[in-house]
Amino acid sequence: MDPRVREHAETICNHSVDLQAGDSVVIDAHPVAADLVTALHEVIADRGANPLVVQERLGKRFQRAFLRTHDGDFELPSHVMALYEEMDVYVAVRGSDNVTQTSDVDPETRSAYAQATQELLDERLSKRWVLTQHPAPANAQLARMSTEGYENFVWDAILRDWDEVREFQARMVEILDGAGEVRIVSGETTDVTMSVAGNPTLNDHAERNLPGGEVFTAPAPDSVAGEVHFDKPLYHQGREVTDVRLEFEDGEVVDHAAAKNEAVLTGVLETDEGARRLGELGIGMNRAIDRFTYNMLFDEKMGDTVHMALGRAYEDTVGEGNERNQSAVHVDMIVDMSEDSYIEVDGERVQEDGTFVFEE
Amino acid sequence: MDPRVREHAETICNHSVDLQAGDSVVIDAHPVAADLVTALHEVIADRGANPLVVQERLGKRFQRAFLRTHDGDFELPSHVMALYEEMDVYVAVRGSDNVTQTSDVDPETRSAYAQATQELLDERLSKRWVLTQHPAPANAQLARMSTEGYENFVWDAILRDWDEVREFQARMVEILDGAGEVRIVSGETTDVTMSVAGNPTLNDHAERNLPGGEVFTAPAPDSVAGEVHFDKPLYHQGREVTDVRLEFEDGEVVDHAAAKNEAVLTGVLETDEGARRLGELGIGMNRAIDRFTYNMLFDEKMGDTVHMALGRAYEDTVGEGNERNQSAVHVDMIVDMSEDSYIEVDGERVQEDGTFVFEE
Repeated sequence: MDPRVREHAETICNHSVDLQAGDSVVIDAHPVAADLVTALHEVIADRGANPLVVQERLGKRFQRAFLRTHDGDFELPSHVMALYEEMDVYVAVRGSDNVTQTSDVDPETRSAYAQATQELLDERLSKRWVLTQHPAPANAQLARMSTEGYENFVWDAILRDWDEVREFQARMVEILDGAGEVRIVSGETTDVTMSVAGNPTLNDHAERNLPGGEVFTAPAPDSVAGEVHFDKPLYHQGREVTDVRLEFEDGEVVDHAAAKNEAVLTGVLETDEGARRLGELGIGMNRAIDRFTYNMLFDEKMGDTVHMALGRAYEDTVGEGNERNQSAVHVDMIVDMSEDSYIEVDGERVQEDGTFVFEE
Repeated sequence: MDPRVREHAETICNHSVDLQAGDSVVIDAHPVAADLVTALHEVIADRGANPLVVQERLGKRFQRAFLRTHDGDFELPSHVMALYEEMDVYVAVRGSDNVTQTSDVDPETRSAYAQATQELLDERLSKRWVLTQHPAPANAQLARMSTEGYENFVWDAILRDWDEVREFQARMVEILDGAGEVRIVSGETTDVTMSVAGNPTLNDHAERNLPGGEVFTAPAPDSVAGEVHFDKPLYHQGREVTDVRLEFEDGEVVDHAAAKNEAVLTGVLETDEGARRLGELGIGMNRAIDRFTYNMLFDEKMGDTVHMALGRAYEDTVGEGNERNQSAVHVDMIVDMSEDSYIEVDGERVQEDGTFVFEE
């Protein structure tokens, strides 16, 4: 087995979920991730914790069969709920043999199932948890890479000195915490401002996402103004949406366009009131992620990018007394900041063409 | 997908576990059984029940990694216990990519783990449950068969009219229920008598084992006398023991031999007091099982065979007030009854060369 698989398992247990003796651990993984799951069993045994492997969210072929056959009147599975209530740690391992496995499941059925099982999600998120990636061939294919090339890419992004990353990113957190207005400019097509006043900026150094590598906060829902051209394609419900352009007034999207699959974008915006406003501003700072791989777990942390999400704001990123944008969706989209671009905070340039002010 | 996979799933749900709307179902299966697990999801969705796929007993590669790394001081995994307490139905699907996956796990470690997790087993057995087989290539290899030949064999044994089987077997149950002495004679090397007086005979028509196809009871522990030559090899702890010969006096094994791996047999007999006495007499009646495949789930139901187990008697097969043989082991061994053989019950021949008296 590639020694990086074992290092990956160590990073999950030691860094991301801070595994303790006696912990009850659930690992949700597809069989293509069997190497990583095996290495996790070694580390978990070594720490005196107790694993159970399931395919709940990540057994897509089974999920497809279940959802396509069901009459749609879903109920909360009480045994899964009992399992999640009793567990201490949840490890979700992405990695698939076909990333479009559920492409022929009716989106409404999927949404009905998600609603009926919302308590499972809440329960998982209330525990120590991490979402990570095993470099399976189908994921390499999605990234348009060779399997070995993709393995190198994934493990380079994951096997980092996360304490060092935390310290590097802390300097950007310091800038944004206590800031008022942020302005993002890129080329001729992106110039947008928003207020982040009073909203905390979080430092993602690979606790809940592995890889980590971003700092993120929430804009005030009414404050966003200007236009954004998202250079990187968006993958939503199995479809690629390219060259998304949004125009904001008083926080709301008043005009939108896309070169491909614009209807998907329109659908997102029409989900609810909050879907037409931003819920997140994130700054990608993981420079080991140097290419777009159609996988938001990596893409949003890419070095020299920013991302903005339409929809729901994370609770932790909204300051006391500030408004939190509410929505059923949270759709991230990415702007390349590596050339002809800058970020201004309260009138000062803090990043230019991907280089931060504290790096100069 | 082979249509017999779906029929297999239907048989599990409709016949073996009597699936009901709202049932919480746990499926324990290796990824090689993904076709069957997918079909199960269709049937379970159709019935309005709720599945969860785990690899607890049947994720042998993970189990091996865990057991080989652990210090041996095991504890009951509380989250798995919570899951099993809440579930209604447990489906264990045999089928592996390497049936000798745990061959380099220390038997003592395995036994320590089994003891520490005994409550999980008890909990599973207290629910509606079934143990079945998916015809994976590694299992075909164990049986020394082609994969397609093994598929035919497995599905022929499983996809039967189980009501008809139950009626056929009921005639043998009728003979044994209320019987006193049973005598088994085969060739020059097997002639053994035992009392089954007052002990119920059970009719296995594929409820907890799929395939089913045997009737079985318990001999009185002190009553067994004579000698038995088990023609079919025994597979125990990954080793093959051939031509086992046992000699009984007053129920106890007083002499034993085997052509190959006799030490394994000796080890079984030395486990405890009860391991030197019989805990089961079974009569294989599933004629779709026409060959030995090194898999006791099938072998013990083979048509024209009987099997006897050293060790623990099943509670349901011991009549009120009768002695129940107790032991940590239950090791089945098989005698071929197809030629030069007969079964006598209270002095009357009830089977000769594999043909039952009620078939004549």
